[in-house]
Amino acid sequence: MSANSFGTLFRFTTWGESHGPAIGCVVDGAPPRMALNEADIQPWMEKRKPGQSRFTTQRRESDIVKILSGVFEGLTTGTPISLLIENEDQRSKDYSDIKDKFRPGHADYTYWAKYGIRDYRGGGRSSARETASRVAAGAIARKVLDHLLGAPVTIRGALIRIGKHPIDRARWDWSQVEQNSFFSPDAGIVPVWEQYLDETRKAGSSAGAVIEVVASGVPAGLGAPIYGKLDADLAAAMMGINAVKGVEIGAGFGAAELSGEENADEMRMRDGKVAFLSNKAGGILGGISTGQDIVVRFAVKPTSSILQHRKTVDAAGHDTEISTKGRYDPCVGIRAVPVGEAMMALVLADHLLRHRGQCG
Amino acid sequence: MSANSFGTLFRFTTWGESHGPAIGCVVDGAPPRMALNEADIQPWMEKRKPGQSRFTTQRRESDIVKILSGVFEGLTTGTPISLLIENEDQRSKDYSDIKDKFRPGHADYTYWAKYGIRDYRGGGRSSARETASRVAAGAIARKVLDHLLGAPVTIRGALIRIGKHPIDRARWDWSQVEQNSFFSPDAGIVPVWEQYLDETRKAGSSAGAVIEVVASGVPAGLGAPIYGKLDADLAAAMMGINAVKGVEIGAGFGAAELSGEENADEMRMRDGKVAFLSNKAGGILGGISTGQDIVVRFAVKPTSSILQHRKTVDAAGHDTEISTKGRYDPCVGIRAVPVGEAMMALVLADHLLRHRGQCG
Amino acid sequence: MSANSFGTLFRFTTWGESHGPAIGCVVDGAPPRMALNEADIQPWMEKRKPGQSRFTTQRRESDIVKILSGVFEGLTTGTPISLLIENEDQRSKDYSDIKDKFRPGHADYTYWAKYGIRDYRGGGRSSARETASRVAAGAIARKVLDHLLGAPVTIRGALIRIGKHPIDRARWDWSQVEQNSFFSPDAGIVPVWEQYLDETRKAGSSAGAVIEVVASGVPAGLGAPIYGKLDADLAAAMMGINAVKGVEIGAGFGAAELSGEENADEMRMRDGKVAFLSNKAGGILGGISTGQDIVVRFAVKPTSSILQHRKTVDAAGHDTEISTKGRYDPCVGIRAVPVGEAMMALVLADHLLRHRGQCG
Amino acid sequence: MSANSFGTLFRFTTWGESHGPAIGCVVDGAPPRMALNEADIQPWMEKRKPGQSRFTTQRRESDIVKILSGVFEGLTTGTPISLLIENEDQRSKDYSDIKDKFRPGHADYTYWAKYGIRDYRGGGRSSARETASRVAAGAIARKVLDHLLGAPVTIRGALIRIGKHPIDRARWDWSQVEQNSFFSPDAGIVPVWEQYLDETRKAGSSAGAVIEVVASGVPAGLGAPIYGKLDADLAAAMMGINAVKGVEIGAGFGAAELSGEENADEMRMRDGKVAFLSNKAGGILGGISTGQDIVVRFAVKPTSSILQHRKTVDAAGHDTEISTKGRYDPCVGIRAVPVGEAMMALVLADHLLRHRGQCG
Repeated sequence: MSANSFGTLFRFTTWGESHGPAIGCVVDGAPPRMALNEADIQPWMEKRKPGQSRFTTQRRESDIVKILSGVFEGLTTGTPISLLIENEDQRSKDYSDIKDKFRPGHADYTYWAKYGIRDYRGGGRSSARETASRVAAGAIARKVLDHLLGAPVTIRGALIRIGKHPIDRARWDWSQVEQNSFFSPDAGIVPVWEQYLDETRKAGSSAGAVIEVVASGVPAGLGAPIYGKLDADLAAAMMGINAVKGVEIGAGFGAAELSGEENADEMRMRDGKVAFLSNKAGGILGGISTGQDIVVRFAVKPTSSILQHRKTVDAAGHDTEISTKGRYDPCVGIRAVPVGEAMMALVLADHLLRHRGQCG
Repeated sequence: MSANSFGTLFRFTTWGESHGPAIGCVVDGAPPRMALNEADIQPWMEKRKPGQSRFTTQRRESDIVKILSGVFEGLTTGTPISLLIENEDQRSKDYSDIKDKFRPGHADYTYWAKYGIRDYRGGGRSSARETASRVAAGAIARKVLDHLLGAPVTIRGALIRIGKHPIDRARWDWSQVEQNSFFSPDAGIVPVWEQYLDETRKAGSSAGAVIEVVASGVPAGLGAPIYGKLDADLAAAMMGINAVKGVEIGAGFGAAELSGEENADEMRMRDGKVAFLSNKAGGILGGISTGQDIVVRFAVKPTSSILQHRKTVDAAGHDTEISTKGRYDPCVGIRAVPVGEAMMALVLADHLLRHRGQCG
Repeated sequence: MSANSFGTLFRFTTWGESHGPAIGCVVDGAPPRMALNEADIQPWMEKRKPGQSRFTTQRRESDIVKILSGVFEGLTTGTPISLLIENEDQRSKDYSDIKDKFRPGHADYTYWAKYGIRDYRGGGRSSARETASRVAAGAIARKVLDHLLGAPVTIRGALIRIGKHPIDRARWDWSQVEQNSFFSPDAGIVPVWEQYLDETRKAGSSAGAVIEVVASGVPAGLGAPIYGKLDADLAAAMMGINAVKGVEIGAGFGAAELSGEENADEMRMRDGKVAFLSNKAGGILGGISTGQDIVVRFAVKPTSSILQHRKTVDAAGHDTEISTKGRYDPCVGIRAVPVGEAMMALVLADHLLRHRGQCG
Repeated sequence: MSANSFGTLFRFTTWGESHGPAIGCVVDGAPPRMALNEADIQPWMEKRKPGQSRFTTQRRESDIVKILSGVFEGLTTGTPISLLIENEDQRSKDYSDIKDKFRPGHADYTYWAKYGIRDYRGGGRSSARETASRVAAGAIARKVLDHLLGAPVTIRGALIRIGKHPIDRARWDWSQVEQNSFFSPDAGIVPVWEQYLDETRKAGSSAGAVIEVVASGVPAGLGAPIYGKLDADLAAAMMGINAVKGVEIGAGFGAAELSGEENADEMRMRDGKVAFLSNKAGGILGGISTGQDIVVRFAVKPTSSILQHRKTVDAAGHDTEISTKGRYDPCVGIRAVPVGEAMMALVLADHLLRHRGQCG
């Protein structure tokens, strides 16, 4: 099946390269008669947009999303929604340095090994620019969730670590996330990260990060065992984001260090409903949502484009060196926050439709 | 699409419950004219088989796999291979205790919330017994890889942590894995784990674990960006194994703490081939294999069935308590090792076929 | 995607060869809490069973279906339903004649060209024996339709032509279908067909047929444009039945000879509902059901196995001749009637689930 | 799975409505390093373009295809190819007449029944305008076939019947197809059809048609039994074209009237290759190509938009009448010829990739 599509019933297909004329996606399966216009999408694009602080890439893109189909008189019609985002900042750059060299940590070598050809301009298809399409599709997914459930599903992401500096979870405050350049829920860590990233940038280096995404208001019952498990689909969704190297649900890797009694969340009836006394499961048991918050974390490796000189080879089979010149993103993990949120929304919307299909 | 199938071109579909008459799977897409018989599958079943040490479940199953189709005169025909495994140990047990109660940490509540019905006998469909089908299918996947590549792909798994006790990676010796009950590559940790699990069992508790699976000999170029990335599919594959809560590739979550220069693997030509000077990437860049070892780790939560009393609720909406009686598995992570190997093989075989389809 | 699976949400996967130990299928996506047992399936198997008259193959199969999974205490659980049918009549026959020769009109040559190997015993995977699995899965599909719609969907097939002898549609009487060996709705044609097929058999020849399948009670709105159209899926379903060479919906090929005003079904309100004044559309417009009867016809070529000598070649590349010896089926179209019904039910059940998924 | 995508490995997804700003498609799975530019696509668009004779719709569209992604320096990169076609002739028309009325024979009522909303402008998503995307994608499919096979696959369509006037097959001459407005291979029928359609138009009526598409040069072995049969996929492909009501392969419905010895194509060795002495099978046996010409025919119903007054109902549930005003297409079957060719190419390209995946 298509490798550029994601989802089963609520499904999106992305296309486009970093330095082509445009990127975009086709979102299929949205329920009909749902209000939708560009203004529903644009705020999420703003959140991901490059160039908003000195800690993210200085590429300038207005990232205006146009809806080309699937909406009529302000309502979805049930037909595919085509979204288009023009690439504006295709700076006429000299690519001679990376044209034939494989940048360490990038997909240059593997695309070349697989396809025997690559669009080297800005990483081509492997560029994180593709994630703009995910955020646009994710905005529609959020609307689908609210529309079908009749109650808001809140999907929020936060940066919880940069390099060796984790947040203090005791200071977690969601309202802080929108108040700083890092999507940090811990105001206290912000100056630490600022100083750390300034030093990192001066050293021509880069830093990794960990993102946590939480979905609240998801009903119990979403997920399709055995090979459409909600957690498995979330793992694929997050691991498929550029530069992600690890994904965990709930207690995650930490669960391996717990005892059975620490890990298995106990239950009690509360107001006639099942309530869990803890959430080590991260809201998913047996691949199906429990009704608790769904909690996913993923690790983003440090930006591979750095100013330091690195050993590599070229397409002709010669040893050589390479370094990035000019603008770069010292911590790509920051902008992965809205992307992680979008992928959460997309997985949940798909599973909601799938659940309706089988279970009504 | 079917939630009980995995893979795109090399695709398997599993069926069966813990205490039904049998379990099995249908493996579709195997290339024709490949030698295959039950003896190719059975050794891998033995590795996963329950009841082989005091540290795993005492359920007795001979796990004999029958090939019902797709093989003619010892060769695959290109048609679907149906595998059947009879359930022998369906001990006529008294299920009255779990019939209406939801066991914490299990899928009891979520299956009930989703379907409004559940086969409570031994966990039904959500039982880890289903993984026997994966191991059987995985044995065929291994043969497909070797058959098509003409050179062996070695897929090996190891247990690298139980509870708070990780192995010492400096002592890693693959030959040790087959020498102990834990699939440990570190002989030194074995007595520690033995004592730890004996104590855990006496306490009626359980322990989590971390497994590492390594595939060697995989050519560069496998993986289908953007939404069929090799790492994303491996993440789904591993996260979908029962009780898994985290998956990472290469440096994984640790990558978030590295600098860009520590993380991005440098390259040099060696004997006319591209060689990487490190493998933080775990053999995958941009969702495509690099030709290096593919390294995946996943965390298994502690067994949820324990002897201790736990708070829960029942289907009628009453608060109650539950505890497991009789045999149980103090560390389900141990038997997840061959399952993780199988899933690795299944993902690779599928991607090898997919790569041939598009790129020849 | 798997070539041995059919459907999207309600999806079945078949396996097995004509002369292997068994055949079967896995039915995935059935809604939970639906009553189901083997007695719901067996009557449909009887209808398709070989050896019921002198006009169909004399192979003896009791075609007993066993449910191996997915049903608990008489109700579906939402997990995959595995069905198994043992092959009993694997007459230890001498296959030396067809082992290396390609029978004209059969899949012998094409399987060999594709796979380089074939299970020549009774046609192997390409045998119409596989359709027993479809009928079994179709019986579940019928139950799904009735269960979800709360009102019966009636799916009936009839033979409307054998060779050059069509029925007289003016004499159509559904109650006749079960009264003769041909599933003919026209009692008057039965003696004609009897004589015709007796002569055909004596000549060592065979005859083609046309089948019509009608589904009544299907609500408007099923079908998923543009590439999941109900008629397109029905066309694939019917064309995929062994020996089928043509499929048409409603007026079908005859529509090409009508004028626009003859063809487009007019509408009027009747008792507050939309009523069509004719049904040239066969119940489908724009790929979506109209609420009228869904009418599909398909043509089955004459049995390729005949007693007459036929020119062919062998696997070694020599010209040779071949003829069938012993039992054969002078008109395979007869037994295609219940298979066509089953495929209709399977397509409708899948589309019903898909419609619920997107449109609720 | 997405209802707006077609194909498995070589897969395209279309979007867009008749009167939206643009239509287009995303073509995924094309092999890398294949020469491709807009000039490869445009000639096929010209063939389908409206307004080329008085016998087809007078809508004016230049149908210029832009490639937005997936091609770099004139070669495919293996990433998705996004194609965009702007809608130019969105004549600011008065839709008040069809806004609330359901046109007989159109998808108006069924879209409304399914989605509860419809874009009534020009048929919206159900308009045959969508087939422009198929033709564009089909042009790429043709290139894929030639590129991978190293020898041309010739795919040609012809109109073989309008209304009650079939061609004389004895006069079949492929070179004539490009010489008349009807894609007729029989020059002799052209004046008959001209007169017939002129009369039809004067009567405010419309006519149906039958199209035959032939693919030559297709190797034996393409097709994936049992549920990915080449003929089943072709049936779905053709039945899914707007207004198609019947599909047949080779002898098609006529096969039902043949004897076994007339129907089953005999074989002989010719120059070391298997040669068939006839082609009743239409190049497909057991769902797999035989190496002979693949022959598909499909029937197109008469245009539903006609000038005559027709009984219908409106969305408010009232009986009413409707008639088309202004330009209309007296025989939509004519322009279905290049669409049928495109669908043939798309099915074959997909099966070629699938075959390579499994069988090398």
